[in-house]
Amino acid sequence: MGHPLDQLSPGELKAASSLCQASRPSKLAFNTITLHEPPKALLLQYYKDDTSHVPRQAFVIAYESGTTILLEFFVDLTAGKVLNSTERVGACPIITLEDLQGTEDIVRQDPHVIQLCEEIGITDMSKVYCDAWTIGFDERWGTTHRLQQALMYYRASKNDNAYAHPLDFCPIVDMQAGKVIEIDVKAKEGSKFERAPVPLEEQNYMPQFIKDYRTDVKPINITQPEGVSFDLQGQEISWLGWKMHIGFNAREGIVLNNIRIEDPETKEERSLFHRLSIAEMVVPYGCPTKPHHRKHALDVGEYGCGAMTNSLSLGCDCKGSISYLDGYCSNRAGEAFVIKNAVCIHEQDDGILFKHTDFRDGTVIATRDRKLVISQIFTAANYEYCIYWSFKLDGTIQLEMQLTGQLNTYVLSPDEEAGRYGTEISSRVTAHNHQHLFNVRIDPAIDGQHNTVVQSDIVPGEDEVGSPGNFYGNAFYAKKTKYATVKEAAVDYCHETSRTWDICNLDKVNAICKKPVAYKIVSRESPRLLAKEGSLVWKRAFFARKTLYVTRYEDNQLYPAGNYVPQTSGLRGVAGNDSLEDWCETQADLSLEQQDIVIWLTFGLSHIPRVEDGPIMPTEPVSFLLRANNFFSKNPALHIPPSYATYGQDGKTAWHMRDKVSKLEISRDAEGKKGCSVC
Amino acid sequence: MGHPLDQLSPGELKAASSLCQASRPSKLAFNTITLHEPPKALLLQYYKDDTSHVPRQAFVIAYESGTTILLEFFVDLTAGKVLNSTERVGACPIITLEDLQGTEDIVRQDPHVIQLCEEIGITDMSKVYCDAWTIGFDERWGTTHRLQQALMYYRASKNDNAYAHPLDFCPIVDMQAGKVIEIDVKAKEGSKFERAPVPLEEQNYMPQFIKDYRTDVKPINITQPEGVSFDLQGQEISWLGWKMHIGFNAREGIVLNNIRIEDPETKEERSLFHRLSIAEMVVPYGCPTKPHHRKHALDVGEYGCGAMTNSLSLGCDCKGSISYLDGYCSNRAGEAFVIKNAVCIHEQDDGILFKHTDFRDGTVIATRDRKLVISQIFTAANYEYCIYWSFKLDGTIQLEMQLTGQLNTYVLSPDEEAGRYGTEISSRVTAHNHQHLFNVRIDPAIDGQHNTVVQSDIVPGEDEVGSPGNFYGNAFYAKKTKYATVKEAAVDYCHETSRTWDICNLDKVNAICKKPVAYKIVSRESPRLLAKEGSLVWKRAFFARKTLYVTRYEDNQLYPAGNYVPQTSGLRGVAGNDSLEDWCETQADLSLEQQDIVIWLTFGLSHIPRVEDGPIMPTEPVSFLLRANNFFSKNPALHIPPSYATYGQDGKTAWHMRDKVSKLEISRDAEGKKGCSVC
Repeated sequence: MGHPLDQLSPGELKAASSLCQASRPSKLAFNTITLHEPPKALLLQYYKDDTSHVPRQAFVIAYESGTTILLEFFVDLTAGKVLNSTERVGACPIITLEDLQGTEDIVRQDPHVIQLCEEIGITDMSKVYCDAWTIGFDERWGTTHRLQQALMYYRASKNDNAYAHPLDFCPIVDMQAGKVIEIDVKAKEGSKFERAPVPLEEQNYMPQFIKDYRTDVKPINITQPEGVSFDLQGQEISWLGWKMHIGFNAREGIVLNNIRIEDPETKEERSLFHRLSIAEMVVPYGCPTKPHHRKHALDVGEYGCGAMTNSLSLGCDCKGSISYLDGYCSNRAGEAFVIKNAVCIHEQDDGILFKHTDFRDGTVIATRDRKLVISQIFTAANYEYCIYWSFKLDGTIQLEMQLTGQLNTYVLSPDEEAGRYGTEISSRVTAHNHQHLFNVRIDPAIDGQHNTVVQSDIVPGEDEVGSPGNFYGNAFYAKKTKYATVKEAAVDYCHETSRTWDICNLDKVNAICKKPVAYKIVSRESPRLLAKEGSLVWKRAFFARKTLYVTRYEDNQLYPAGNYVPQTSGLRGVAGNDSLEDWCETQADLSLEQQDIVIWLTFGLSHIPRVEDGPIMPTEPVSFLLRANNFFSKNPALHIPPSYATYGQDGKTAWHMRDKVSKLEISRDAEGKKGCSVC
Repeated sequence: MGHPLDQLSPGELKAASSLCQASRPSKLAFNTITLHEPPKALLLQYYKDDTSHVPRQAFVIAYESGTTILLEFFVDLTAGKVLNSTERVGACPIITLEDLQGTEDIVRQDPHVIQLCEEIGITDMSKVYCDAWTIGFDERWGTTHRLQQALMYYRASKNDNAYAHPLDFCPIVDMQAGKVIEIDVKAKEGSKFERAPVPLEEQNYMPQFIKDYRTDVKPINITQPEGVSFDLQGQEISWLGWKMHIGFNAREGIVLNNIRIEDPETKEERSLFHRLSIAEMVVPYGCPTKPHHRKHALDVGEYGCGAMTNSLSLGCDCKGSISYLDGYCSNRAGEAFVIKNAVCIHEQDDGILFKHTDFRDGTVIATRDRKLVISQIFTAANYEYCIYWSFKLDGTIQLEMQLTGQLNTYVLSPDEEAGRYGTEISSRVTAHNHQHLFNVRIDPAIDGQHNTVVQSDIVPGEDEVGSPGNFYGNAFYAKKTKYATVKEAAVDYCHETSRTWDICNLDKVNAICKKPVAYKIVSRESPRLLAKEGSLVWKRAFFARKTLYVTRYEDNQLYPAGNYVPQTSGLRGVAGNDSLEDWCETQADLSLEQQDIVIWLTFGLSHIPRVEDGPIMPTEPVSFLLRANNFFSKNPALHIPPSYATYGQDGKTAWHMRDKVSKLEISRDAEGKKGCSVC
């Protein structure tokens, strides 16, 4: 028996699609087939008693083939029947990889596109490529057609950089009709050039183009001769006190469920988080010139960051002893497509966990840290997003996103400058300013399902310098603000007060410090949404308007930009497509004190491109932390064996796990000579 | 022949002290002997022509033994003579380890201390310890006496945690007189207890006290079978295009000089930074109750973070193939004391450098990153500061501080609560709120000595939504503000605009983007100084009032809190003890455009203690970056061999350095079975 949150197996995916198809007279084109997660009440029951029955259900989205009729199905896999089906009017589901693949062919064969290419000297259409993107929202068509915009590029050879030679027009493709319905050509504006010639400078990074690789990069090997310290059973893992279930789905990619940690003092298993996932993201571009305003992909809801996941490679994506889980998604035919090695699970040395030297006598302890990393990399057209969920020995959880891949590029006319909205990264190629904003859905369970969020602001004492309460003026403290209602909990990060948020369980007091047990959100990289109030992005990405929102938990409220994200305008009221904005409004006056709550955190970065980001971008990391804050009764890592400990007074070495493989390369003695005195 | 910035060798240290002693009739007690760094003009000449003569000079600070007469000497070591000596009146030099060591003995033997101990039931004075601290500033004595404050602790056994049992009084010791001159006893205030009993709860972390170490932590080994990729000659290092000199002195610890990088496109060696160091720091505590207001150590200028450096251990402090440099400091007798393995130099795997997959055909490149880490760990009484200067393949420099060790603790009366200025981390032991603020002196040389600092603020476009310039409201850009004068350049970080600073060379334009070549300061962890305007800390730590200051370069302006930091009150005008505040005032209207400049950056964190920080603190990291920003003509890491590259169209693997040691632990195939298909 698997876990109720295990992803649908290839067999279950096929069973679900077959049941749906059998229930309908016309042929279905499947869009998404995924686990319909059980209601929380059933899951909590299962966590208490794993023999309790949890139904295995699939959620299926499909078109009636060749039409715009969109259907939703709930399927009971155990009973082998469709529970219900609904037609969703005015909703567009995610753009699948198959949807994207077809667009390039449509565009290449379009006579108008061929003509536009000829006008700028391109006659070999096999060298013309496009990245199909969701259209964002274009008021000319709204949601009546299922659309893609095609970002156009030329490639000088088949392995040429796909983004080095952008073209000056952008066709719009009607996916159901299978044709180009409009082409936005770059406005001439002040230029004396009617069309922008193709920028042809070579900008490559693949080995066939790099003539002179360095030969002085010596290998760094990581080995784990006794194997890993974790135990992986199906999708459940336990590691040095941590326990959780690793879920995976087409939309969110990795989902972490039922995260628990053993309290090393009491040996009690304590719950931390019910569910953690990247629930949405938005990448708004900052160039106001048409049609670039349409570039603001909400990749999770528009494509699915699980479906776009890379198949990972041993030693290239992570080093050491690696475990992988495959990812199971589905195709248009309703069959599974398997992403081999979609999720990477490994341990990583992480420097010093703690160290102290008594300066009196040289008594020392040094204990090394390590982390368990659960990772996934997905490719969204030009960009790569590397997702690292890390679990540390001191109880910290970190989500780090590493951004790499390639910049989205556009052509400049010969008499045009990149200006303030872009950076010219090669001759006549501009890369526009943009943001990467990730929304993380945090469903906490700090020592139980009922939690409270308390804002913590570090502020100077109120009393003036020279007054009795603050005579020397040095007073400061953490000012706490409890969010009483949903409407109070829509807030921004504040740098001036080093703002953090305690997810508290007010019903459980830490016996040592007499404060409620808590985990703290530390997120200092939460830039504001730069698109203005009232703008298209601002309307579509409500979740990114504030750093943090807190709502009351409701089953099935998983996606802050709505279940159906493509081609939304931010207008509300579409049946079956409510969003965080709706939940915040509906729940505005509901109490958040000791309730089952969900926290929606946005973090990320604003990226003004630099020349060094081309032709392929060095990884740029951005992260946030969930840290124990008066949750344990002391440092929870005291039971990790030290690497080295010695009592200076006795001259006795109490503990010496000094590894046998680290090596003294050079040590210089007092006269600058090489020696080897610490071997 | 060594480098002119090599630290003084043990022989040179001894020669310097001998020459000083020979020049004076009375016996000298040496405080600091260090390299007197050559004027920049001479260094620049030497960098052009390494046969040019650079005098080798020592700077010596000493007391006339048993007096308060403080002398400064400049010594020409080549000529073997004292160039000049000056008496410094009203200045207190750093507190040395020898100064600290004596205090414990003085305090233990003081009758009043013995009596105060007896009153709380302690009769065995060998179990009474103190951490001697600089006094900060106490207006009762000013600078007329050389003082230390003794933070008192009891230890139940000789290996007991030194900070678990704090006592309720704080003696003040006159170092020259060798006696206790005052004792500040904890104020009774609202308590019904005349004295606070010793808190006796056990809070240990050394192996003799930990009964149940985990046995499931498997080794992670890091090996470099072909050795390291760097070349270390004396104190000069070159590594994969990077070159620099690694200096070390008693005050600042690691100093990095003449940092250059090879431009991989032109093979030209380009200068980046003339000198980088941690020039000062301050750790202000936030409890306003006397005498805790005195706790705000400026560790660099009050103790010297070089002198307090740990001797590092192979495999415990860093793993892999490690090179060390010893550190040479001096003692009271004028002899060298050698810190074996003071500076650690090693390479570290650093995840993915860049990756891209073409979603069309699966063409992939994945290149692994690594960094060169130059590190040092120093112990400042209870705290450990781990300093990691990292150099990356994409041209980034990172300074990361990792904080560990122990919290400074104080006793609570049985009827007292920790309140808002501290956290009770064990029964009746409070740890006060505090900040760690590090001031980094950045002497830039971006493609030459003349540079300009430009503030970069990412802001929405000014035009309103719906207007032609910003119709969809998505416009944003980086607004640039050039600092014209010193007074304009005293500024704070701004989160709302993701503020960064470009260190530009306006005389050199990047040919690709037509913007000046630059390196960018990215420092998002720069909390404000929380002590109020006019407070003691605010006066003493001018450098921490703003995130950034920029001044014009002057020889010998190295220490922002002054050359002599202990017992300064913030009052100015002491001869020979000018500070950043003076320089900013004197230079207020001087131009900063294309000048030889120095940047003073403060970064760090505010720490509200949590129970998990006891009895020993898990490392807490804080860092800032110096990143290439239109400095190169493209990603400078393109010449690093990929770990893996394949052309999907051909099915050909172009590059496969997949390491032979990374191992497949578990892979689950589509039906959840274990497999091994990617070996």
